[in-house]
Amino acid sequence: MSDSEQFASDNYSGICPQAWAAMDEANRMDEPAYGEDIWTARAADGLRALFDTDCDVFFTFNGTAANSLALASIGQSFHSVICHELAHIETDECGGPEYASNGSKLLPGEGRDGKLTPDSIEHLVTKRTDIHYPKPKAVSITQATEVGTVYTPDEIRAIRAVADKHKLNIHMDGARFANAVAALGVHPAEVTWKAGVDVLCFSGTKNGLAVGEAVVFFNRALAEDFEWRCKQAGQLASKMRFISAPWCGLMEDETWLGNARHANACADRLARGLLDIEGVSLRYPRQANGVFVELPQPVQDGLRANGWRFYNFIGGCSRLVCSWSTTEAQVDRFLADVRGLVE
Amino acid sequence: MSDSEQFASDNYSGICPQAWAAMDEANRMDEPAYGEDIWTARAADGLRALFDTDCDVFFTFNGTAANSLALASIGQSFHSVICHELAHIETDECGGPEYASNGSKLLPGEGRDGKLTPDSIEHLVTKRTDIHYPKPKAVSITQATEVGTVYTPDEIRAIRAVADKHKLNIHMDGARFANAVAALGVHPAEVTWKAGVDVLCFSGTKNGLAVGEAVVFFNRALAEDFEWRCKQAGQLASKMRFISAPWCGLMEDETWLGNARHANACADRLARGLLDIEGVSLRYPRQANGVFVELPQPVQDGLRANGWRFYNFIGGCSRLVCSWSTTEAQVDRFLADVRGLVE
Amino acid sequence: MSDSEQFASDNYSGICPQAWAAMDEANRMDEPAYGEDIWTARAADGLRALFDTDCDVFFTFNGTAANSLALASIGQSFHSVICHELAHIETDECGGPEYASNGSKLLPGEGRDGKLTPDSIEHLVTKRTDIHYPKPKAVSITQATEVGTVYTPDEIRAIRAVADKHKLNIHMDGARFANAVAALGVHPAEVTWKAGVDVLCFSGTKNGLAVGEAVVFFNRALAEDFEWRCKQAGQLASKMRFISAPWCGLMEDETWLGNARHANACADRLARGLLDIEGVSLRYPRQANGVFVELPQPVQDGLRANGWRFYNFIGGCSRLVCSWSTTEAQVDRFLADVRGLVE
Amino acid sequence: MSDSEQFASDNYSGICPQAWAAMDEANRMDEPAYGEDIWTARAADGLRALFDTDCDVFFTFNGTAANSLALASIGQSFHSVICHELAHIETDECGGPEYASNGSKLLPGEGRDGKLTPDSIEHLVTKRTDIHYPKPKAVSITQATEVGTVYTPDEIRAIRAVADKHKLNIHMDGARFANAVAALGVHPAEVTWKAGVDVLCFSGTKNGLAVGEAVVFFNRALAEDFEWRCKQAGQLASKMRFISAPWCGLMEDETWLGNARHANACADRLARGLLDIEGVSLRYPRQANGVFVELPQPVQDGLRANGWRFYNFIGGCSRLVCSWSTTEAQVDRFLADVRGLVE
Repeated sequence: MSDSEQFASDNYSGICPQAWAAMDEANRMDEPAYGEDIWTARAADGLRALFDTDCDVFFTFNGTAANSLALASIGQSFHSVICHELAHIETDECGGPEYASNGSKLLPGEGRDGKLTPDSIEHLVTKRTDIHYPKPKAVSITQATEVGTVYTPDEIRAIRAVADKHKLNIHMDGARFANAVAALGVHPAEVTWKAGVDVLCFSGTKNGLAVGEAVVFFNRALAEDFEWRCKQAGQLASKMRFISAPWCGLMEDETWLGNARHANACADRLARGLLDIEGVSLRYPRQANGVFVELPQPVQDGLRANGWRFYNFIGGCSRLVCSWSTTEAQVDRFLADVRGLVE
Repeated sequence: MSDSEQFASDNYSGICPQAWAAMDEANRMDEPAYGEDIWTARAADGLRALFDTDCDVFFTFNGTAANSLALASIGQSFHSVICHELAHIETDECGGPEYASNGSKLLPGEGRDGKLTPDSIEHLVTKRTDIHYPKPKAVSITQATEVGTVYTPDEIRAIRAVADKHKLNIHMDGARFANAVAALGVHPAEVTWKAGVDVLCFSGTKNGLAVGEAVVFFNRALAEDFEWRCKQAGQLASKMRFISAPWCGLMEDETWLGNARHANACADRLARGLLDIEGVSLRYPRQANGVFVELPQPVQDGLRANGWRFYNFIGGCSRLVCSWSTTEAQVDRFLADVRGLVE
Repeated sequence: MSDSEQFASDNYSGICPQAWAAMDEANRMDEPAYGEDIWTARAADGLRALFDTDCDVFFTFNGTAANSLALASIGQSFHSVICHELAHIETDECGGPEYASNGSKLLPGEGRDGKLTPDSIEHLVTKRTDIHYPKPKAVSITQATEVGTVYTPDEIRAIRAVADKHKLNIHMDGARFANAVAALGVHPAEVTWKAGVDVLCFSGTKNGLAVGEAVVFFNRALAEDFEWRCKQAGQLASKMRFISAPWCGLMEDETWLGNARHANACADRLARGLLDIEGVSLRYPRQANGVFVELPQPVQDGLRANGWRFYNFIGGCSRLVCSWSTTEAQVDRFLADVRGLVE
Repeated sequence: MSDSEQFASDNYSGICPQAWAAMDEANRMDEPAYGEDIWTARAADGLRALFDTDCDVFFTFNGTAANSLALASIGQSFHSVICHELAHIETDECGGPEYASNGSKLLPGEGRDGKLTPDSIEHLVTKRTDIHYPKPKAVSITQATEVGTVYTPDEIRAIRAVADKHKLNIHMDGARFANAVAALGVHPAEVTWKAGVDVLCFSGTKNGLAVGEAVVFFNRALAEDFEWRCKQAGQLASKMRFISAPWCGLMEDETWLGNARHANACADRLARGLLDIEGVSLRYPRQANGVFVELPQPVQDGLRANGWRFYNFIGGCSRLVCSWSTTEAQVDRFLADVRGLVE
């Protein structure tokens, strides 16, 4: 892929070479549909090996569906989901979770740097217990968060403790799970089932696929009949191998982790470069592959005039996201442009 | 792709070369997400040109979703959808349309060779009009049908007449729309908007894509805010270009039609070959890319023992489906095997 | 109540004296809302005593809601419900069960005299097990049936056996449960939990209330958080005592059973009288409070011209329903009119 | 009804004499079901006369259902509803609107004294217009509000102006609509259709019925097929006359308005009495039948120890609600108790 003038999103990126090669291989012959091909079994086994546990694995087309269906498998329509007020499922899914669950309310909680706190969960569960208030059944946390920060294993375990107290299941929105694992430098098990996560939506798309998310149930009771749920919801691919084979590509030689490390490293280079510039500050600590930076409006305007694409976040700070395909040269060009505009 | 020993389904096939090439081209650089890339606009324009009308075009991941969301855009939860009793939406979507519409009932109608008749529609609309019966709002027809037959433009116009009488909108499940157009030898407009179809779900997957269906609204009022519906339902691809670019590939040089003609020709060769065999008969007339054949049980067993994959249909006849990737050699091998087993 | 010229439905009847008196008593002072009044607890206890078991009891406004919510508590949207093809939930609820469950399909089964057979259930469960077919999770039977017949305890136990085999829960639509108990002359427990029913929707409305059905969970695990389900679905009465107090009235001195016996006796008198008339025959055996009679069209027309109201059923037979408020004089007037018209 | 020791809610009250008398009259003979009786037509005509316009009228069992179904008739699942952050539909319906609409999000807005402002609506509509944000389609206002205040006709017209600008429909939650009309001293038309309200949910229950709300569509296009919606959702009463006849009772001699005036007058007496007590203040202006008062905790405890029932509201103030059945003696006893506890 050629170089790019964007930090708009990691979903602007394309298909990474390893995923492409696997897709190519899967295209060499006809294969049974609906996941009965050889690739889908292999990809699911690969994820079980990756997490080092006997989890149940399903593939959906995108993250909206993965998150919405996983949450629907936890609660009924009259239950509620506690999440951070900045959570993607609350702010950017156009009511996807409410639709898949037929009406579950999301209860927005709080916490610094986009991270939901046990206290906030406790408050939302205990402030009311009457039947006019939808009964909390799930906690959803995003790893890495929407503002580029990362929950530590200890932080997740603390959430597990309050979840246990109130019989809640924990859903992890892993749109950037790979980046979080890369940032923390831990085994994937440490921030999932070993810390008490019941179900993880692990994004392949942002990590280098064309399409395809893995829904990984560590709490296998929640996965009961989940394949029917996917089918009914329009999330069962007939040519499933074109989702699962690329996942095999991602898992070979830990490509998923390499892609994430690369994106994080680019973000780190970008963040450091920005902090070196007078008058530029970060809104949130840079921990994964996103950089949230306060740039004067003229600088933002100038960058956009120069052809750079990026989005602004709540409060007006600029969100810069790196991906597997971001290049150092691109980072450096951006920094040079910022420097030129600041002066 | 290498040769194959299956007539199980056209969704066992892979990605056709033209779609692959377009996907490759779309992968050369980063592109905006959620359909704001250059490919998606081009694919939608291509479909408008193909149908020679100013329709509204959306892309979904699969056919379950395309059909379910298109039907949901026609009626409310308390409305009903009239379809043939063999319709895929009734028999094989695990309640997908009921889910997307939050409860619309499907009213199964009748007709020879899998084709719904105007009389059957009339009967289902008029037999009851009380509020305990869900009010019919949509007619859904499948083109080509689930049993491989094809509605003529006249037959569709006759359905339009009864639909007009009762203020129904017409949905066309086009899982094998290309094969129907190829079989009829008409312009695509003749069997869609010119015959009174309001919305068509045009399958790319069965025609040679990895994933991706086009929902084409000829009745543009029905398309109001449909992009939000797709988003909420988990049907908005972030890397949309990997759905739309392959559609561009399909439309270049009428590849979609060439693929369909090839599949139909293989089915024709297969049907003719089978009819030449003593004691073998077809259950339904062969018109598109499926052959529904009555084979003695020992012959079926023998074919499966020889490694052939195919499904049996209602009543026990065998369904043999050809695709863009079926080869004449494969057809001939199959016929030889049948002949060997019959004797 | 004054005499009436209708056999249209038992829901044309009014409020029986005992229910009225209880409502009057409940209206003497303010009471807590949402079921925290003294009457609701008393009514639930009364139902537990009536069934001689520690069941969970909830009250909803009507039968559509009771049945739809009870079924939704058994399965998820992608599950299915097996019921008789004549079942009210299939033919007359305008998609209510599909709506409450967010898309569960009903699978219509068969059986003589409106009674679903174990074989038909077995067939619907086993004919397909793929994910394109919604997985059966519930069996729904109507007691008394839509055609006025009654399941014996043995018949229900036979259904329980097949349900156990396939892990299905049994829902009983008890729109005319009281009439069935009166007809069978058994203890209510014998045709419910002792025969394997998981949840019963026991109609008060048809038995003499203004409004209000009891949802009785013998399988208490299914009742988890059911009060939230009722609340969300708009089925939690604020002034609940005006539903529950009349239920207390019905249960005092076995009024519910007396009302049902009276209705059944009227139906018996009506059926016997009709059978005495030359050329008149019954379509279904008269067992509860409904009489399904084949009347020549001129006789039907004549009766209607004389002011009688009644509905025709599938196939054209006339459905005559008696209630707690039907009188012998009314039955005799009707019979005299039929005789006059037949001659 | 006897005197009471509660200000907990107006839904603790019973059935007012005029409603009771009408119910009694409706119980004198059998009547057709499902609203085809003489009372339902009369009640609907009565409401048309009351509002002096040709509106469409439907009856539901309770307010949760009335509001949820009315909102569902305005938008699709992917649309959103703007309401005040204190709105009952947001805080106390356990996800009822989300359930009935299959996933519409509520967007909580702001405004002093529980009244949504045009600016807040404008902000919520314009802050985002992308497809990841559910498109606003409805504004819901509560009249009288949840904190006992009342929108003036001018305030509603100002909301209408911003609604017109953005093509929004206005829903009015009229749980205490009668109290608002009584407080404002205007014709009901002035605060509904003449001010731009599209659909009103007019509560009968809080005004003196056992059960039953009127859904009044001034914008009749929104009412299309609404009877089917009610049926499917379990909101069609079979013995409808026991909802509609009491409504006739309420409308005779303007009982509804008399009941509301009485409740408001009691609240006024209560508020004035409280303000005369040293150290007691009101949290919100007393305008309708609710008094929101800041009482020291020991006073609250003392009142409850004396047998008084009332709820606390957000922030800890006490909510005291008067109804048609509240008596001056009861108000005076309460005031005496407060005075005794304060000293």
